[in-house]
Amino acid sequence: MHTVAFIGLGNMGAPMAANLIDGGTTLRVFDVVSELAKPLQNKGATACTSAAQACEGAHVVISMLPASEHVAALYLGKDGLLTKLDPDTLVIDCSTIAPATSRQVAQAASTLNLSALDAPVSGGTNGAKHGTLTFMVGGAADALERARPLFGLMGSNVYHAGPAGAGQAAKIANNLVLGIQMIATAEALNLGVANGLDPVVLSDILARSSGRNWAVDTYNPWPGVMDNVPASNQYRGGFAVDLMLKDLGLAIESAEQQHCQTTLGALARELYAQHSADGHGTLDFSSILKLVQKT
Amino acid sequence: MHTVAFIGLGNMGAPMAANLIDGGTTLRVFDVVSELAKPLQNKGATACTSAAQACEGAHVVISMLPASEHVAALYLGKDGLLTKLDPDTLVIDCSTIAPATSRQVAQAASTLNLSALDAPVSGGTNGAKHGTLTFMVGGAADALERARPLFGLMGSNVYHAGPAGAGQAAKIANNLVLGIQMIATAEALNLGVANGLDPVVLSDILARSSGRNWAVDTYNPWPGVMDNVPASNQYRGGFAVDLMLKDLGLAIESAEQQHCQTTLGALARELYAQHSADGHGTLDFSSILKLVQKT
Amino acid sequence: MHTVAFIGLGNMGAPMAANLIDGGTTLRVFDVVSELAKPLQNKGATACTSAAQACEGAHVVISMLPASEHVAALYLGKDGLLTKLDPDTLVIDCSTIAPATSRQVAQAASTLNLSALDAPVSGGTNGAKHGTLTFMVGGAADALERARPLFGLMGSNVYHAGPAGAGQAAKIANNLVLGIQMIATAEALNLGVANGLDPVVLSDILARSSGRNWAVDTYNPWPGVMDNVPASNQYRGGFAVDLMLKDLGLAIESAEQQHCQTTLGALARELYAQHSADGHGTLDFSSILKLVQKT
Amino acid sequence: MHTVAFIGLGNMGAPMAANLIDGGTTLRVFDVVSELAKPLQNKGATACTSAAQACEGAHVVISMLPASEHVAALYLGKDGLLTKLDPDTLVIDCSTIAPATSRQVAQAASTLNLSALDAPVSGGTNGAKHGTLTFMVGGAADALERARPLFGLMGSNVYHAGPAGAGQAAKIANNLVLGIQMIATAEALNLGVANGLDPVVLSDILARSSGRNWAVDTYNPWPGVMDNVPASNQYRGGFAVDLMLKDLGLAIESAEQQHCQTTLGALARELYAQHSADGHGTLDFSSILKLVQKT
Repeated sequence: MHTVAFIGLGNMGAPMAANLIDGGTTLRVFDVVSELAKPLQNKGATACTSAAQACEGAHVVISMLPASEHVAALYLGKDGLLTKLDPDTLVIDCSTIAPATSRQVAQAASTLNLSALDAPVSGGTNGAKHGTLTFMVGGAADALERARPLFGLMGSNVYHAGPAGAGQAAKIANNLVLGIQMIATAEALNLGVANGLDPVVLSDILARSSGRNWAVDTYNPWPGVMDNVPASNQYRGGFAVDLMLKDLGLAIESAEQQHCQTTLGALARELYAQHSADGHGTLDFSSILKLVQKT
Repeated sequence: MHTVAFIGLGNMGAPMAANLIDGGTTLRVFDVVSELAKPLQNKGATACTSAAQACEGAHVVISMLPASEHVAALYLGKDGLLTKLDPDTLVIDCSTIAPATSRQVAQAASTLNLSALDAPVSGGTNGAKHGTLTFMVGGAADALERARPLFGLMGSNVYHAGPAGAGQAAKIANNLVLGIQMIATAEALNLGVANGLDPVVLSDILARSSGRNWAVDTYNPWPGVMDNVPASNQYRGGFAVDLMLKDLGLAIESAEQQHCQTTLGALARELYAQHSADGHGTLDFSSILKLVQKT
Repeated sequence: MHTVAFIGLGNMGAPMAANLIDGGTTLRVFDVVSELAKPLQNKGATACTSAAQACEGAHVVISMLPASEHVAALYLGKDGLLTKLDPDTLVIDCSTIAPATSRQVAQAASTLNLSALDAPVSGGTNGAKHGTLTFMVGGAADALERARPLFGLMGSNVYHAGPAGAGQAAKIANNLVLGIQMIATAEALNLGVANGLDPVVLSDILARSSGRNWAVDTYNPWPGVMDNVPASNQYRGGFAVDLMLKDLGLAIESAEQQHCQTTLGALARELYAQHSADGHGTLDFSSILKLVQKT
Repeated sequence: MHTVAFIGLGNMGAPMAANLIDGGTTLRVFDVVSELAKPLQNKGATACTSAAQACEGAHVVISMLPASEHVAALYLGKDGLLTKLDPDTLVIDCSTIAPATSRQVAQAASTLNLSALDAPVSGGTNGAKHGTLTFMVGGAADALERARPLFGLMGSNVYHAGPAGAGQAAKIANNLVLGIQMIATAEALNLGVANGLDPVVLSDILARSSGRNWAVDTYNPWPGVMDNVPASNQYRGGFAVDLMLKDLGLAIESAEQQHCQTTLGALARELYAQHSADGHGTLDFSSILKLVQKT
């Protein structure tokens, strides 16, 4: 298999890179925090001192960075990484960022005869560790086919959402629904229990009725209704409130650029912001139930 | 099978009563609008001139009325219908009303040695016609078992939500989630399409991701994504905006009595109210997409 | 001066009636809670055993009742009080109720050759005690002129808002703005103080800038900024949260009947409902600052 | 009077600079768009080719820039303008930006023995032209006294809000209230008119009651109620929707950093965003009445 450069070795990037190594990929890695490369070096990766150095001899670059500005700073500009890549290199950005930034990267790549995919993931750190991530991919179909074996080492589902930026657009649409329906579920369970219902019985009824959603039947926010969800583990692990806050921010920002309404999205974002302000930013986002119950 | 009195022969009550007749039940029927009894009389029902007359010799009373005040006016008070029923009569109220009113009816019934169930339905007029309604039932388990054969003639699912009022509480919790997640889905699809996504592709991705919900995968609000849903039939049929508005009103009223928050519920209700004010109160509630898209 | 019947002797009605007596009016009074008439009887009023009895020989009827249903029950219907009044009697309803109900009363009165005014007040129990209420009046100009001397004994400002129902419409429009701008002021002061500002300095700046409003400059919600406001007296006295909740409910109900948007009004109402659910329903509504600061 | 450098010659900066010249100040000016300096050059200012050049020999620097990032880019960093100023120079930033950025500038200035004030203005382009701006000032009292004569040439009111950043904090608190109360006023006037009230009469009643605010009595959003306001001039001129959107964004951003709630602020911002998305971003913000009335 070809040599792959991996940029960004945080909570998500590190286990994704580890899975690539386990799958037999030759990996060159870089992070601005150099110690983050150590565990991967121990597994056989080559630790590099810059993104450009990591890309030497690589046919594929994968990046996993916190926000739009980091991705733009990495790839774009007259000294950006894109200008240092061999023709035909495939760039796969797995960061969750603004669709507009993904489109800029793709356009700049295209000018340089490079292929680029935006491929944000869902599944959280657990999905990253266990190689069960879902990739929502924007870009050309043939580029996606080139990337598919690598996606297969890191995840279990790959959706082709459309052209450049479409992966991001699908991800933020998904998390817009998710952020809202988690609060809706918390409000409904809280009301039902206040009315004397058993949360297990109510969740079961909702899960088989038109109130059914992923928060009700797979990731229930009420402690004890389900095993193996953050709600039953003091809201530890999972997908942090502050990440949901970031994604709803991307959704609202994109909605404004596209002249779209997101009235419920804006209020949902404010509620997660209040919950974060209460000191719960690092808990799983299903802990929004605490805000709903706050007295 | 025993004789059943059926009170309230509107869009929902009439087809429910017809299914009971088709199933072999001896039916005595009443509605304040006397013509509504005609079609059932033609099918073999006895049309009565008052609710009390309909209950003569009946062992079960079923009611299907528009709102809490109608149910209270029918059953309660010193001349209420409950006072005229033989001991051991089973009262089944299928109206969607305030849990508090259902508890009042149940308590008054109990004092008179009558059994009472609150059994609101979901499934709409189509479910009523085809006998595929879902019943969410509050009351004693043995009363539910007595009612089960009748539920079986009118519907396909019966959930025991808990004691008196629990059927209503489950129904309004369900419709609280439903009303919100329909708007969330509309906002997300609208944003995704504005970002260049195909609504069919995006719906498919959401349906297999954490944005999954009943609105996305069963009752999609975007015209053309699914066949056989109101969105693909100019939002005709289905569950009217004004009924969703009523049910969200019940949820908010109950939340206030129970000292519960429903911040998203309150905003969702306002959005359906605006949509109704735009003249769309009789359309299916998935038409809220039009409000989201209004420019 | 003519004989006046006064119906409804609660926290507002009693001091209003007392001021009429002090001003020389011959008063016949009634309340369903008969003890409430005692203090007025001691001041010279005639306590009656029914509203109809209170109206015997009276040329003016004033009512001050809690809600639309009480006003409708008092005046309307085939045995309603209107049917028992002498021709040319002037009916002044000072209750805060739905404009639609006021219009019904006015129409029924007109059919019977009676004059009717809707004249809801602002100023609270303090204004009622000190005779400094503001009357917002709907109805004919000549009827208002007949009522003006009585208004003068109970208040200091009289505004003619327009025809029947206009008094109510003005009152709910006023309280819609008021309820929202109190929360806005609380959010802004809280943010400013968190940013290190002195609440007195910030209030002073706002009061002289475009953020100026009645809540900032006359009824400041931050404890200690102003003397003699509820905020500086542990939010005791003033205008209760639950009354603001009722008035915002009237505004939203009327907005729906008139097909008007009140998006901020709906959210404001939900916030007062949450504050009431927290157990603060009897505090002054400026205590909403506590909800804004809740952590 | 001392020499003053003026950086940023847009819609606000240009007339402010002109008033300084008219008042006898020796002005050196710079804008990245060099043509903007021409009209001021014609009035006697020295047009410079960089901010640093403009500051040569100046004892005071005034800047008026669009956003936090421009102010940070101008002053901060190891080559920032602050490093090039003579000791004891007074820096006055009149931009409306994040309080946190103003604090950074003040802290960096302090390290270099420079004085700095944040002095955002209200009053819009009209106030800038006519020298009637209001300055909300953060920083040391003695620095404010040094600046006061210059403020006097550009405006009519100067408020000392507190230490560094306090000017920004006061400004965003003001605009948070303002943005909300304008929508509240629009909702209330619209509801009142739908209920048959005359908008002039209703505005007059509100202006003398507890619904009083600056939007009602000074800047009424209903066309024709007041002369000389944007509402009576097709919402031209005044304070643009997109600027209100920016300021509400600053308020929400600051609220999150300070762990404060702004539930109404967040929804108000979404409503201005929807109004901007409808194509009205350049109209005066009182045009939000159009959104409230949209059908």
